Amino acid sequence: MPNDAYGELLERWRDARILDSCDSLLGWDQETYMPAGGAAHRAEQHALLARLVHEERTDARIGELVEAAADDERVQDPASVEAANLREIRREFERWSKVPTSLQVERARTASLALQAWKQARNENSFETFSPWLQKILDLRVQEAEAVGYDTEVYDALLEVYEPGETAAHLIELFAPVRDASVDLLGRIRESAHRPEAGLLEGTMPIERQSEFVRRVAEAIGFDLHGGRIDTTTHPFCSRIGPGDVRLTTRYTEREFHGAFFSVLHEAGHGIYEQGLPADAFGAPAGEAASYGVHESQSRLWENHVGRSQGFWRHFYGDLQATFPDTFAGVGRGDFYSAVNRVEPSLIRVDADEVTYDLHIFLRFDLERAMLNGDLAVADLPGAWNERFEADFGLRPPGDAQGCLQDIHWSWGSFAYFPTYTLGNLYAAQIFGAAGRDLGDLDEAFARGEFLPLRDWLRDKVYGNGARYRPAELVERICGKPVGAQDLIAHLNGRYSRIYGLT
Amino acid sequence: MPNDAYGELLERWRDARILDSCDSLLGWDQETYMPAGGAAHRAEQHALLARLVHEERTDARIGELVEAAADDERVQDPASVEAANLREIRREFERWSKVPTSLQVERARTASLALQAWKQARNENSFETFSPWLQKILDLRVQEAEAVGYDTEVYDALLEVYEPGETAAHLIELFAPVRDASVDLLGRIRESAHRPEAGLLEGTMPIERQSEFVRRVAEAIGFDLHGGRIDTTTHPFCSRIGPGDVRLTTRYTEREFHGAFFSVLHEAGHGIYEQGLPADAFGAPAGEAASYGVHESQSRLWENHVGRSQGFWRHFYGDLQATFPDTFAGVGRGDFYSAVNRVEPSLIRVDADEVTYDLHIFLRFDLERAMLNGDLAVADLPGAWNERFEADFGLRPPGDAQGCLQDIHWSWGSFAYFPTYTLGNLYAAQIFGAAGRDLGDLDEAFARGEFLPLRDWLRDKVYGNGARYRPAELVERICGKPVGAQDLIAHLNGRYSRIYGLT
Repeated sequence: MPNDAYGELLERWRDARILDSCDSLLGWDQETYMPAGGAAHRAEQHALLARLVHEERTDARIGELVEAAADDERVQDPASVEAANLREIRREFERWSKVPTSLQVERARTASLALQAWKQARNENSFETFSPWLQKILDLRVQEAEAVGYDTEVYDALLEVYEPGETAAHLIELFAPVRDASVDLLGRIRESAHRPEAGLLEGTMPIERQSEFVRRVAEAIGFDLHGGRIDTTTHPFCSRIGPGDVRLTTRYTEREFHGAFFSVLHEAGHGIYEQGLPADAFGAPAGEAASYGVHESQSRLWENHVGRSQGFWRHFYGDLQATFPDTFAGVGRGDFYSAVNRVEPSLIRVDADEVTYDLHIFLRFDLERAMLNGDLAVADLPGAWNERFEADFGLRPPGDAQGCLQDIHWSWGSFAYFPTYTLGNLYAAQIFGAAGRDLGDLDEAFARGEFLPLRDWLRDKVYGNGARYRPAELVERICGKPVGAQDLIAHLNGRYSRIYGLT
Repeated sequence: MPNDAYGELLERWRDARILDSCDSLLGWDQETYMPAGGAAHRAEQHALLARLVHEERTDARIGELVEAAADDERVQDPASVEAANLREIRREFERWSKVPTSLQVERARTASLALQAWKQARNENSFETFSPWLQKILDLRVQEAEAVGYDTEVYDALLEVYEPGETAAHLIELFAPVRDASVDLLGRIRESAHRPEAGLLEGTMPIERQSEFVRRVAEAIGFDLHGGRIDTTTHPFCSRIGPGDVRLTTRYTEREFHGAFFSVLHEAGHGIYEQGLPADAFGAPAGEAASYGVHESQSRLWENHVGRSQGFWRHFYGDLQATFPDTFAGVGRGDFYSAVNRVEPSLIRVDADEVTYDLHIFLRFDLERAMLNGDLAVADLPGAWNERFEADFGLRPPGDAQGCLQDIHWSWGSFAYFPTYTLGNLYAAQIFGAAGRDLGDLDEAFARGEFLPLRDWLRDKVYGNGARYRPAELVERICGKPVGAQDLIAHLNGRYSRIYGLT
């Protein structure tokens, strides 16, 4: 047992993190294998662990240790890992100390039960089943934001949890050119004479074989199944239980393989990040992901920059054809490639193409901001959603299950999370560009089945750093320029101009 | 929030129990779905929860509350639920307060890692892989026993955990007539001209169908799958995560159905008990099982008194034949019934027939007692096991995987657990007899597919009482006589005399 303040601080912080990782298993189990009858007790378990974790992280002793550790020689160099650990622990301690334990407990209990209500509501296409829970979890998070405080608006107090240092005002500025470029590109695509044939992706593809194929691919790109697994759930997600134990989930339909396939690549991107965090720093900020935005950058990078590339399918298409000969034996790789990159406004975010994807995010960003700021009542959400959806996509959801009930996030109380997806797209485009400059022609490497050099480069540049740098700083260090929209816009224009023959 | 001492005590005890139930999920997951790479972190999680649970249960405040609650009006009647709750909490508080937290943490961490070592050792048939872990966990439990104290021998200090009020000396006395009767009955069976044909149970039975069949049966006898599930593991077990969430496991082989089938009935017996505990008393002793012996009485009752009865198969045999026509279409029910009750000394305890079963227990009881008392070195266990096994069963295990490595219990440090199986057999025979006196001809009821009257009777007499009565007192209350060997011996002699045509 270390008897220095810094050492004691890290040790106690680690205990809280281990306890929190027990809660991760409760959450994973709730989505995968928990019998329906276990929901009420699961809520009690979540509530208790939330209380204990909160008490441990906001214990007065932590405050004393944070103060005492500031004198430690190791933290005097602000570029050191130790300084970063202390900075992040102090940030979390100060934030959570402002939030009453009772509020955290209530949030955990409510989130667990609201999740069950959301599932039922989505199955029954009934917003009314979910709306009282949405109201309750929204109120709790507004209370949290008020307790924590903010400069400009409620939204920022929650955004800080997912993307430290980010603000709604800055996001609006950052997102505007992405929106313009997406709308412009979509317009040109719709006018294009080229129409990729989506029907060729459909057939009868046994789920067992889909599962085996996607496991092969996930392993080939660097997801370690000795330290992970892939299960089936309603809503795909990735959860790290701890070092050596990172779990992905997806959902399958027999009629098409690509929905499950790309969702596994997406989650495997999260998983590869988690598996690349330094295991010996588990429990310290240096052993945690930098932010949710950086996390999404990795899921989007592996899903889109890798998984939807020409080189990737030059390598894997033969295997896919052999796995589902009835569907793909007679389909050329070029047509297949165009089909998996087909751009088409559609109802469901997780199935969206790269060009329309961010429009789904901007809709959620605006609506959740309006709810948090009190400009949109929960009861009015379905109407507001459908109206905005029609304006942006030219489609109207036939029901709320395919509208405002489609995503799990709000049921958990994850308001202000959605922007991290677009931040992830921005970061991913910049980071992938930098990787190409360092590693040479990645598309050719993928065509040869070489994915591990990219994974290892990312381990070095991103994963291995944990939360040592703030997200914007991390991206700037890797790419040599601040976060901006140019690389993402260039990527979208480049890839889709080629596919759609645009000039 | 109650502000009386009794109420506060119960609330804090309940929190510790909820925390412990998180550990139950960690344990279940470790056996079912945890990836291999997660073992080290899982041990850290177990160790932390063990510490927190131990600290909470032995907190000085608990001691103060126990003292203060003694003046509560509700506990003055020693027959009240409140008095029983206080009695059991005091017993546990006093016991665990004598055990240093560091020892509990070390035990939890060691047990988790020893379990992994045991699995590997069993797979590789290598006692050497396991023996250092066995030594370590044995030492830790001896230290615990020494800390707790005992009147006569180390064994009693551990037995108290599983069967409050029981001692090794009393077990020796109680078990002697069972041993004599089992050996005598086995001798007469071996001399009998009647030889049930075991080969008729073998065939090719797809695991999927076995699983569906056994789920139908488990539900029919009263195991609720809305509040439970059945998975596959190396070693079958039952785990309650909480009210509404009780999980069974088993292992299948395609060549025969009855191994998995009876193991599910056994675990379903545990599960039916857990599901019958009063949910609103969760976290109080009145919401917990009375003892491991009483628990085993229910697994053995449902497995043997119900599942191996004539009436049970009069009801289910048609379904079984329809499920596996290739194997059973041409087999008469009488021959089938004799086959599933065939008596034959064999190597594996969990596959043993009712007559030889207790001989497996007596062997383990004697050897673990010798290890705890220092009369048998860990290194000498395989030799002692094989020698004793040959003496009792006329067989020599071909390897330790089928000898002293076959059971999971010692790897967890569960020394002094095995006798609860034979206690369970004793209790089960007495309780089942009492049920028959109350409910009429149970065999006829089973033949009509009526199992719920028995389950509901057991809920009333056993499950609903939780740990309100000490085990021996509970059995005596139900049966009107103290625990003894007569009913079990009468049951074995009756059933097997009929099957083997003994006089």
